[in-house]
Amino acid sequence: MEALLHQSKGVCPFLKKTSPATLRSLSTSTHQSPGGGTITNLQFIARRCPVMNKALAVQSARMTSRRSYGKATAGTGVVKSLLEKKLHTSAEKKANVAPSTSPIRPVQQAPPLQKVQPAVKKPDAYVGPKPAAPPVPRFDYEGFYNNELEKKHKDKSYRYFNNINRLAKEFPRAHKDSKEERVTVWCANDYLGMGRNKHVLKAMHETLDMYGAGAGGTRNISGHNQHAVALEKTLADLHGKEGALVFSSCYVANDATLATLGSKLPDCVILSDSMNHASMIQGIRHSGAKKMVFKHNDLADLEAKLASLPPEQPKIIAFESVYSMCGSVAPIEAICDLADKYGAITFLDEVHAVGMYGPRGAGVAEHLDYDVYANPNRTKQSQKGTVMDRIDIITGTLGKAYGCVGGYIAGSAKFVDAIRSLAPGFIFTTSLPPATMAGAAAAVEYQARYQGDRRLQQLHTRALKEDLNQRGIPVIPNPSHIVPILVGDAEIAKQASDLLLSDYDIYVQSINYPTVPRGEERLRVTPTPGHTAELRAELVDALEDVWQRLNIKRVADWEAQGGFVGVGVKDAAPVQPLWTDAQLADAQAVSEPAADEATQQRVMPIAAAAA
Amino acid sequence: MEALLHQSKGVCPFLKKTSPATLRSLSTSTHQSPGGGTITNLQFIARRCPVMNKALAVQSARMTSRRSYGKATAGTGVVKSLLEKKLHTSAEKKANVAPSTSPIRPVQQAPPLQKVQPAVKKPDAYVGPKPAAPPVPRFDYEGFYNNELEKKHKDKSYRYFNNINRLAKEFPRAHKDSKEERVTVWCANDYLGMGRNKHVLKAMHETLDMYGAGAGGTRNISGHNQHAVALEKTLADLHGKEGALVFSSCYVANDATLATLGSKLPDCVILSDSMNHASMIQGIRHSGAKKMVFKHNDLADLEAKLASLPPEQPKIIAFESVYSMCGSVAPIEAICDLADKYGAITFLDEVHAVGMYGPRGAGVAEHLDYDVYANPNRTKQSQKGTVMDRIDIITGTLGKAYGCVGGYIAGSAKFVDAIRSLAPGFIFTTSLPPATMAGAAAAVEYQARYQGDRRLQQLHTRALKEDLNQRGIPVIPNPSHIVPILVGDAEIAKQASDLLLSDYDIYVQSINYPTVPRGEERLRVTPTPGHTAELRAELVDALEDVWQRLNIKRVADWEAQGGFVGVGVKDAAPVQPLWTDAQLADAQAVSEPAADEATQQRVMPIAAAAA
Repeated sequence: MEALLHQSKGVCPFLKKTSPATLRSLSTSTHQSPGGGTITNLQFIARRCPVMNKALAVQSARMTSRRSYGKATAGTGVVKSLLEKKLHTSAEKKANVAPSTSPIRPVQQAPPLQKVQPAVKKPDAYVGPKPAAPPVPRFDYEGFYNNELEKKHKDKSYRYFNNINRLAKEFPRAHKDSKEERVTVWCANDYLGMGRNKHVLKAMHETLDMYGAGAGGTRNISGHNQHAVALEKTLADLHGKEGALVFSSCYVANDATLATLGSKLPDCVILSDSMNHASMIQGIRHSGAKKMVFKHNDLADLEAKLASLPPEQPKIIAFESVYSMCGSVAPIEAICDLADKYGAITFLDEVHAVGMYGPRGAGVAEHLDYDVYANPNRTKQSQKGTVMDRIDIITGTLGKAYGCVGGYIAGSAKFVDAIRSLAPGFIFTTSLPPATMAGAAAAVEYQARYQGDRRLQQLHTRALKEDLNQRGIPVIPNPSHIVPILVGDAEIAKQASDLLLSDYDIYVQSINYPTVPRGEERLRVTPTPGHTAELRAELVDALEDVWQRLNIKRVADWEAQGGFVGVGVKDAAPVQPLWTDAQLADAQAVSEPAADEATQQRVMPIAAAAA
Repeated sequence: MEALLHQSKGVCPFLKKTSPATLRSLSTSTHQSPGGGTITNLQFIARRCPVMNKALAVQSARMTSRRSYGKATAGTGVVKSLLEKKLHTSAEKKANVAPSTSPIRPVQQAPPLQKVQPAVKKPDAYVGPKPAAPPVPRFDYEGFYNNELEKKHKDKSYRYFNNINRLAKEFPRAHKDSKEERVTVWCANDYLGMGRNKHVLKAMHETLDMYGAGAGGTRNISGHNQHAVALEKTLADLHGKEGALVFSSCYVANDATLATLGSKLPDCVILSDSMNHASMIQGIRHSGAKKMVFKHNDLADLEAKLASLPPEQPKIIAFESVYSMCGSVAPIEAICDLADKYGAITFLDEVHAVGMYGPRGAGVAEHLDYDVYANPNRTKQSQKGTVMDRIDIITGTLGKAYGCVGGYIAGSAKFVDAIRSLAPGFIFTTSLPPATMAGAAAAVEYQARYQGDRRLQQLHTRALKEDLNQRGIPVIPNPSHIVPILVGDAEIAKQASDLLLSDYDIYVQSINYPTVPRGEERLRVTPTPGHTAELRAELVDALEDVWQRLNIKRVADWEAQGGFVGVGVKDAAPVQPLWTDAQLADAQAVSEPAADEATQQRVMPIAAAAA
């Protein structure tokens, strides 16, 4: 056989330049010819060879009598063609196609001859699918990528990632590329420092050792386990819903849920707040449903749009509780009212609110009925009619205040089961690792029992906003935990961020388009319980310095221009924070759970009272 | 104030039934009226009240002279309306709207009066947005969910998840709901048991302690770190590409990349194998690009479709190397040839192949040039023109053979940077946790240096296929590591799976629609290095038993029917596995890395030779 291959290579220009690996690959699979037969890819190529073409014609004629038999034994189904043939033969055997060898081995279903590629210019050259150079003009893909990147460079929206390694034991400090260079992180979404919480880490270490690194499959195929069951129970109880479902991320949860609902509900219309997150925008787009964008937090606009639709038509009002880049908060209850009035369901993204608001950290919807949920003796009946109870669908993340990764939806049992059964973004993906789910469950339960972190976070936020206001550094006013500092220019925002990092060891990422509209570029600061007075003073001094060095506009400058995105608006009434003074002063704040307590009795603390 | 509220509640039916939380919420934000002014939501509602309506009209007339001033100070931008007002006031202050109190406090920009909701039927009743019952017929959302679920129950495609807890120290064993009940897992995608690999777990434990549970943000905002840099370098080197980019999952990687490319490349056409994974199908759908589906692995059909398009038109051929549910393998090199010939780029999903094929575990594309990549002295030059080098875009997962979670793309530097800069599914999501990335990098590097696991996996696969063939239990023939056992009926497949679990302590999930076409239901078995001869004998005996008990068709039965999806096809040539005898016998298999070796010098083992 070796000798045969060697001899064939001397004669056939195709065999000469083709490696054994290529030859093997060419016979890896077969394809169906237009005539309905099945041949190997090598045979397909061989038909373009002036020598083999003739040999195959002879072969084909010989096989005609066998064809009906071949058809009788052929099954149906997509993998059929693949399996009727030898998929893989050694390179030596491929030498058979060389013209100087004996006729190729019998083919079961040799197709009728036809000229698939008639453009054989030189009869002595192999003209197959592997040309030395593309024979035709080709789209310049690399040029296209380059052009897209150039556009981003030109409008200053090109993003340079900062290498920031957040140190669990030195929270909120991190090291840069070099392990020696420390910075203070002022812009992470690990709002409460749960990423280094000892209960979370303990649960993760233990689960890692016991159940390994990955889930090993989709939820349907070996990726469903007690950690998923417990986490979803915990989340359903947290939001007072019948069910919950965990996704790879809340981006996926929003995208998959809205896309599925919007495409399945007959003639569905999705009413979407104009400042909704990209994940919701994508989900709505992917649903193919009719979309109506209402002005940010504008009830009149929303009502006008709802009123324009037939009452029986399915409608989803999709909105967020805390809008992360400006910190604004939705009028959740009034939106529920409108939903009731016009027969819509509500889809509320609490991604930036879970863990942060409410006596048990369930979000702003819970916070609006603070006393009901703070009451340990509450019942299902007493929860009835609360804002959170009225919301149909709540989505949240495990990757921000809960310090881990992943996202979820919560709602009625039937709704959750329908999404579980229909959403490709849930069905066809590997589930989160057991350790991730265990860590997330520990975080949710810890925050449900302990209010200290989010209270301290709120106090630090208040103090920082006050300090910045006193310096005239322009904070976009809002009632939440976000501290957006207005710069108003993409390039200057990046310079400010770079200066803070290089000269002051402070990391605050600049937020540019497309995350915020052009012209509204900002530094988005997120205080945590770990950002003590000393660190706050450092930040404020550094910002003062940078504001001077780069000559960035202050509140007075914006005021002189008539105000912008809430900054420098004359005689504006002060914004009251969601956490009221009374709530922050509430002495009933539960004491911090003991170190070995949190991983026990996972579901109990949240569900017990409502049972 | 308290007394005032109490008094008001006695007079106003709205205030009487509305909680302080609701009142607070109603003033949480403002909205712009059609007349261009801004009012609080409470004021908006008040305008529907027969008493307050009049009071507001007086108020409005009084304010007219101030309106131009209000406009002069108003800024622009989306959050403006929110911030010109007090967002949150205490419930006591809301009592101001009660008709019996003194006129409400001055409004800066009171809008012109208009009847937004004229349907006031009873003048003495409050008609606002919170009706006791929906005033209009409403779409039955719960009924709709229920109906969708009923459909799934009826056609037997409703999925019941099995609670399977894979035990790291007893791989491939797991426990069910109860910790005492052990089962052997025969269907996980942790093909090589890397989920419990000591190098992976060590890297994860260390990273967890040092850097915490979560990344804390998107890649752009504090979620970029040394672990992401190292993992992406490792993956780029693995595939011999300039760059790589990590996503939450390969579902997201495929979806986001195809959606972005397909929507951005002008007039792009995506040619998609008919058996492509749901993630690719979704990505293509989401791109809005023209889609042409070619018959599974059919080069002639693909070529006919390519030839029908103008050469300069951008085209992407999207396909997989190993198709996971039937184990078929694409003719990768021949598809590259067609791509070259017709000016297309290739998008190859190696999700079920990475870690499993090739001397360094880079997948089937690498495997096709086994000798090139097995050579420790290979150079960039010697890699030039190999199949893997010719593929434009490779996508893979960290959640199957690599035992963790997450997905990625690899390709040219410009391509990767463009996706990094443009894909919402990458930009707007929290990045994978540092520990996950460190664990995944350890897994990739381990498999790049040690072939023992995947060789043993192949040997176990061969042995199992042989044993099943001898019993006449119908394995769908294929050249890969997948062992699909044909059942051909949804209900029986589930029964077989249930019986195996309940009576034999063996977990093999039944694979039904939509994962496989109806009528092709199967049990999909995935042997691992841990599935030793003893466990294999157990499985084969159990299957034999179940096949008898449920009277499931055997190879002979399918043969009598003329064969189906490759099973029982008379005189079919045997399928040769991708891993040849020679490759499996190769004595050059590297010895297993020492326990404390893998986490060191992360990038070196893969990249060094190609440098």
